[in-house]
Amino acid sequence: MSLIQDLIPLLGQPHVLTGPDMARYARDWMGGYQGTPLAVARPGSTAEVAATVKLAADHNIPVIPISGNTGLTGATYTEGGLLLSTERLNRIREVRPASRLAIVEAGVILSHLHDAAADHGLYFPLWFGARGSAMVGGVLSTNAGGSNVLRYGSTRALCLGLEVVLPDGRVLNLMSELHKDNSGYDLKNLFIGAEGTLGIITAAVMKLVPAPRAHATATLAARSLPDALELLNRLQAATGGLVEAFEYMPADYMARLERVRPDLGIPFPAHRACTLLVEIAATAPALTAETAQGTLPLTDLLEDTLAQLMDEGLILDAQIARSTTQRAAMWARREAAAEIGAAVKPMIDSDIALPLDKVESFLTRIGPRLAQIAPGAETVTVAHLGDGNLHFSVYPGDPSKALYDRVIHAIEDIVQDLGGSFSAEHGVGLSKLNSMARRKDPVALDLMRTLKQAIDPANLMNPGKVIPPKNTAPEDPAKDPTE
Amino acid sequence: MSLIQDLIPLLGQPHVLTGPDMARYARDWMGGYQGTPLAVARPGSTAEVAATVKLAADHNIPVIPISGNTGLTGATYTEGGLLLSTERLNRIREVRPASRLAIVEAGVILSHLHDAAADHGLYFPLWFGARGSAMVGGVLSTNAGGSNVLRYGSTRALCLGLEVVLPDGRVLNLMSELHKDNSGYDLKNLFIGAEGTLGIITAAVMKLVPAPRAHATATLAARSLPDALELLNRLQAATGGLVEAFEYMPADYMARLERVRPDLGIPFPAHRACTLLVEIAATAPALTAETAQGTLPLTDLLEDTLAQLMDEGLILDAQIARSTTQRAAMWARREAAAEIGAAVKPMIDSDIALPLDKVESFLTRIGPRLAQIAPGAETVTVAHLGDGNLHFSVYPGDPSKALYDRVIHAIEDIVQDLGGSFSAEHGVGLSKLNSMARRKDPVALDLMRTLKQAIDPANLMNPGKVIPPKNTAPEDPAKDPTE
Repeated sequence: MSLIQDLIPLLGQPHVLTGPDMARYARDWMGGYQGTPLAVARPGSTAEVAATVKLAADHNIPVIPISGNTGLTGATYTEGGLLLSTERLNRIREVRPASRLAIVEAGVILSHLHDAAADHGLYFPLWFGARGSAMVGGVLSTNAGGSNVLRYGSTRALCLGLEVVLPDGRVLNLMSELHKDNSGYDLKNLFIGAEGTLGIITAAVMKLVPAPRAHATATLAARSLPDALELLNRLQAATGGLVEAFEYMPADYMARLERVRPDLGIPFPAHRACTLLVEIAATAPALTAETAQGTLPLTDLLEDTLAQLMDEGLILDAQIARSTTQRAAMWARREAAAEIGAAVKPMIDSDIALPLDKVESFLTRIGPRLAQIAPGAETVTVAHLGDGNLHFSVYPGDPSKALYDRVIHAIEDIVQDLGGSFSAEHGVGLSKLNSMARRKDPVALDLMRTLKQAIDPANLMNPGKVIPPKNTAPEDPAKDPTE
Repeated sequence: MSLIQDLIPLLGQPHVLTGPDMARYARDWMGGYQGTPLAVARPGSTAEVAATVKLAADHNIPVIPISGNTGLTGATYTEGGLLLSTERLNRIREVRPASRLAIVEAGVILSHLHDAAADHGLYFPLWFGARGSAMVGGVLSTNAGGSNVLRYGSTRALCLGLEVVLPDGRVLNLMSELHKDNSGYDLKNLFIGAEGTLGIITAAVMKLVPAPRAHATATLAARSLPDALELLNRLQAATGGLVEAFEYMPADYMARLERVRPDLGIPFPAHRACTLLVEIAATAPALTAETAQGTLPLTDLLEDTLAQLMDEGLILDAQIARSTTQRAAMWARREAAAEIGAAVKPMIDSDIALPLDKVESFLTRIGPRLAQIAPGAETVTVAHLGDGNLHFSVYPGDPSKALYDRVIHAIEDIVQDLGGSFSAEHGVGLSKLNSMARRKDPVALDLMRTLKQAIDPANLMNPGKVIPPKNTAPEDPAKDPTE
């Protein structure tokens, strides 16, 4: 009997897909990776996931989990493996408002969790563009980030408990609701961010927080990145840590924005070096109930703080949003990043993390290097500056693979030298395997191989992802990124 | 050559201790475990730790790390192993105030880190009684908790990066300063809380936070535990999450307090069922600068909130600290826990974690069980209620081992049934090995064994701790706790 024949009685014919029915699973959403799965299995319960994994193991067929298919690294690509879709594990099992937690299955769409929390005046503080498609299993498996990390942390910080199907089909029950638990090794964090290479996450206990009742938003011009970091710390001190977003858009970003989206406007034409989008948010009524004068104390607090910082010369200019329309206009400039980034081809993009005080060093050093390697190349820089997370894109004009590699190496050289990471929030998948081989501490890499071998000795869980092979450079099956 | 003979040229004679010189290392601070180490090695650098571990491995001698020796579980006990003291790794390598982090070695005393942070207006938010002796390596290895966990998390949440000497003497450099890093498996969290069984932590990058500028403290009487949880959520909502401590002292605690420390007073003699100590803290000037009326806005906020909650009947009575003396008096009642707990022997103590909304269920169920097992036994209950962390002690009168075991089993039965943990913040060491064997999910336990075997195949890193042997009940070398 083939694996497919074994799966049909287990899951039912409609939940074992082959041929053209696999199309929307086999290709990643960016269209960079087109795989050829053996089949797509859609188990409807943890027990069915476990039985599916067990059957695949019996047949020695790799299992590749897929949930919302919104990843950016080819982590769900497979030739011949079984794609295991968690989309039918879509129950929000429970929301416990008093304990501020939600018990959810891996196929729950992020925005559904947002809605369920909102019904109780609560918020699940993980927020990014793909929230209408991304699912809990995927955000856990990639330790997804987004625009609230500065305040609430990445996915890892929001997870209390996990349920995982192990490579041999056993179910590991770590569905803890506890805020303290020192009973042995921290297994939970091993599976978060492992991209399905150690097991398949089927359910989780996620933290909820009180929903912010008000936001105050401003666009600022600062003189320099060190000033920007000082500004962030001063804003945190003045507000008691209420900063939710601190986004950086320098001159190259503004130049491209002006060209591609002139309708959005340039906030400070005379001060383009360092434009910042700042947002604070509060739950406390003292900051969120309108004053007798009809103003919002939170906005007053932001305004007073910015006035003080402007007096000190730390801010060159500032605009405060006075309406939701103005707030939306400010965010529109930041959220145009994907659109204006993709407006020019070929594009070499990156997702790097740096120590907070090293972002300027990176930008100071990469400029002259690029001038040597790719003279005249345009760049576009945008950052979650409060997290040290930089999306730095290079547009070399010339689409040759050799130039592409030279630019990536130059970026990685400086990032590594500054103690940064080549992957901040998107993960490794296939697209960063070569970076892992080149840049990861060899002892760390070796330990990862030891763990993978110990937990998945048959190498059947999403094989070939995250950890590069030991002695050979991995092949990236992505379409040529310079095309 | 013996291991000792090999170590002397490496570390120098003064740093290889034997005989009576080992006394203060060989015995845990509570005096529960008296070991007989082969020797105590005191390496002065990471390289020396690595060389020491390598030498011990060559000699097939176990290595047991020890730092401040303030643990409560016998985790540094050894018969014949090499105690490796990290006390000479005591440098604060760097404090980076702009990035809000400190780079510290494993032998740095917690209160020294507090002082170094304070020099920059910052705070390292891990705070417990033994802070004057406990060292960074130990708090990381046990994932220590304490009284600020509600606001800032356990040690795990405060660590950005680690340096670890692996069982084969290699140095694993995870000294990241990054707030986002998705480049492969989360190795850091595997070593935090592993109690030295997977490697020896030699240095870390720790997060700092702005130092609170003001505190507001109150003692409350609530009607019930469900009301107390509602109170906590309402206080968090009203203050925007400023609650730093939410401590629970019920009637049995007050009864013992009144008897042993009558000088401290009973705050609400008529309402003893549920006394709470609440503290909020703020950094924002708007809450911490004195008003024209000479009051503190933070105190006003707490007072207004409590008045509202009293109107609603959620609070039966309240006292607000009007001076540092009054604040200290409130804390003295809570901090008397150790003294009043130890005032009666024999004592059966516990360190349990429960889901936040299950603390009441535990107390409701344990009462009748104890009445069956140990009729007339006194109890003393005190909790970090905001963390679901209960220190529940039983004084059975009768000191028999059989009764001791029956009480522990009864507590563990209910804790397990409610999804709790038998170890909230103290770890496992030797004293909770039997609980691990009885109560930990067997799949989780098996996975821990797999990890231990993979990383430390010779079983030389703090062997016999954390993970119980597979088929036999472990012997606890502690002195009889009922004595």
